[in-house]
Amino acid sequence: MTTPLSAPAPAGGVDGARLPLRPELADEAPYGAPQLDVPVLLNVNENPYAPPESVVATIARYVADAARGLNRYPDRDFAALRGDLADYLALESGVRLAPEQVWAANGSNEVMLHLLQAFGGPGRTAVSFAPTYSMYPEYARDTHTRWVTGRRETDFTLDVDHAVATIEEVRPSVVLLASPNNPTGTALPLATVEAILDAAARIQVPDAPEHDGRRAGAVVVVDEAYAEFRRPGTPSALELLGAHPHLAVSRTMSKAFAAAGLRLGYLAASTALVDALRVVRLPYHLSAVTQAAARGALAHHDELRAQVRDLRDERDALVAWLREQRVGGRPLQVADSDANFVLFGTFGDRHAVWQGLLDRGVLIRETGPDGWLRVSVGTPAENAAFRAALTEVVAAAPTTEKED
Amino acid sequence: MTTPLSAPAPAGGVDGARLPLRPELADEAPYGAPQLDVPVLLNVNENPYAPPESVVATIARYVADAARGLNRYPDRDFAALRGDLADYLALESGVRLAPEQVWAANGSNEVMLHLLQAFGGPGRTAVSFAPTYSMYPEYARDTHTRWVTGRRETDFTLDVDHAVATIEEVRPSVVLLASPNNPTGTALPLATVEAILDAAARIQVPDAPEHDGRRAGAVVVVDEAYAEFRRPGTPSALELLGAHPHLAVSRTMSKAFAAAGLRLGYLAASTALVDALRVVRLPYHLSAVTQAAARGALAHHDELRAQVRDLRDERDALVAWLREQRVGGRPLQVADSDANFVLFGTFGDRHAVWQGLLDRGVLIRETGPDGWLRVSVGTPAENAAFRAALTEVVAAAPTTEKED
Repeated sequence: MTTPLSAPAPAGGVDGARLPLRPELADEAPYGAPQLDVPVLLNVNENPYAPPESVVATIARYVADAARGLNRYPDRDFAALRGDLADYLALESGVRLAPEQVWAANGSNEVMLHLLQAFGGPGRTAVSFAPTYSMYPEYARDTHTRWVTGRRETDFTLDVDHAVATIEEVRPSVVLLASPNNPTGTALPLATVEAILDAAARIQVPDAPEHDGRRAGAVVVVDEAYAEFRRPGTPSALELLGAHPHLAVSRTMSKAFAAAGLRLGYLAASTALVDALRVVRLPYHLSAVTQAAARGALAHHDELRAQVRDLRDERDALVAWLREQRVGGRPLQVADSDANFVLFGTFGDRHAVWQGLLDRGVLIRETGPDGWLRVSVGTPAENAAFRAALTEVVAAAPTTEKED
Repeated sequence: MTTPLSAPAPAGGVDGARLPLRPELADEAPYGAPQLDVPVLLNVNENPYAPPESVVATIARYVADAARGLNRYPDRDFAALRGDLADYLALESGVRLAPEQVWAANGSNEVMLHLLQAFGGPGRTAVSFAPTYSMYPEYARDTHTRWVTGRRETDFTLDVDHAVATIEEVRPSVVLLASPNNPTGTALPLATVEAILDAAARIQVPDAPEHDGRRAGAVVVVDEAYAEFRRPGTPSALELLGAHPHLAVSRTMSKAFAAAGLRLGYLAASTALVDALRVVRLPYHLSAVTQAAARGALAHHDELRAQVRDLRDERDALVAWLREQRVGGRPLQVADSDANFVLFGTFGDRHAVWQGLLDRGVLIRETGPDGWLRVSVGTPAENAAFRAALTEVVAAAPTTEKED
């Protein structure tokens, strides 16, 4: 028990080829944006405002209370947190749900994993429409679900006929729609979501359970990670839950609640859909500490929602400013945004623009269709730094517009 | 956006048959022991001692510091926590590892999920030896890994020849060994683990990567969730890491650190093995709050290890007391235990004994081979309550011994 090794196994010095890694993972690298040390971080759509001390104090107090019983396993069904989340959704969207219609996990990505574990898997297909969130194919890979992408229009909206035709042709068990979409910022009209819900209900998933002589259709997941940033008049798919038991609307505390570090994603759906997720979740997946910290942040929803309003105003100002800019004699294209980021372009060499901004201390994200760049909405000072840097970069290289 | 539903979808009222649940999940219920409200909880091997106020205060302070930056995503590679865990393992076992050899996740069960996502999956097989931890088949199911169990001897030890023959016959990609085993408390001699490591390296996993003309062998996982409770002289498989790059030793903070509510499981292995887990983990799977709370608890390892020593003494006393008891004229059988629980029996109607204890306010676990029961080691007062209740139950029903 006290026989020290003479030295640790050398980092990187063990031959990975001697391990039975799954073949499809052999050339994969861990997912994630570069974590660089840069003054202005506008690359991963974080909320730029650190939680105020009032929120920090509540979180610490709630966590201390939880820590006093930390020797016990947490409430597996996190009933209190689900109640708080249901209350918040009612305030935010006007849609009142029962706590049993709410699910949560360690980040929206674990919520998505649960969805694909329950409804995807070997022999099944998930469908989405590109350009969209770059993590979706990883969830599919992790669950051995076939991944098929349809396409969005050049203005990043979704053509209903194309979406319905894709669903009828592919017969997926899961349809994944991001609204507002990442990285484009585009929200879906409810009529589009409804048409897709109808198509999803009409198809028969090959190995799904039968009911009245026909197989179940697809589950439709609307990923509303950025929903709180939507413009006035833009609806939430939460409004469609009452009539569609095969709809799941996912949300996160990462953005609106300024809590990316908390990893609290959640979902609203029918009780039947949530019950299916309860079967595949690992027991006690949500710690007592996470439950307590999330409830602490939720208790301050008023302050945090005021910040969201400020960020929406900043976003709208940023979109307007970008639309005034010209590159190579042409105005910049800027996608309408209902999120806390803006996609803009196009540039013949977007990497050069990205690098030019980074050289000036501003990190944004090189993502989305060729020629486009995505910038997160920061504080007024951060947005000013971005505007100044972009003005310099464009002036220095006026020929970086994308060739047609 | 402000159209309330007239009523929430009724709980349980939506027809699950209309959802495309995977066929193999159709009859599954969520895993988990009953969470009953009983005075003496000795059913899920929790540490009976709540964290002292010193630990609570440190956790709250660390979490408050983390909350001040909660708007940012956490360190994806949790470098500081991995360093702390490596330091702790060096103190606990004498084995010094590099931080890059340590991995962690939301509970040991997420660690196991990562292992089976990287090395198991469709077309592959995981092997363990029963009776053992009842969650293992669920991890296999969740990852579409075939699950095969060999057997332990009647005294719950593992026969090396049987284990090696099973591995050679089944050619698994993952071998799962619990040591100390749950629910039996049995620790494996290092010679047994070494023989299994050799067999695992010798076989060729059908679709594993090739190296020098032969395919990789299996990964061996030694689940040491209860390692800190092992008796003096019982070694840890950590000592074997230096020579075996295909070995993973998993641990948890749930038991020794009295932190079941924290959900912090971890693992020590070669850097190559850990790097494979980094590919399948969801990005940012470990929150800033979890990282902070875990580091807070680790900072108090001295106090918490003193509690572990007390629990070991209580365990040994409980084993000795149980061995003095007679049921139906025969002494009770009691498995040797290197854990914080004791398996004892046998009873003709173990459910009646379990119910009799519950009627007296003591909840233990009806698990393990037919006729056996498992009791967790509690505080001296809780153990006294258990002894008194068992004495009454056995006196009331002296014919509950198991028929041969």
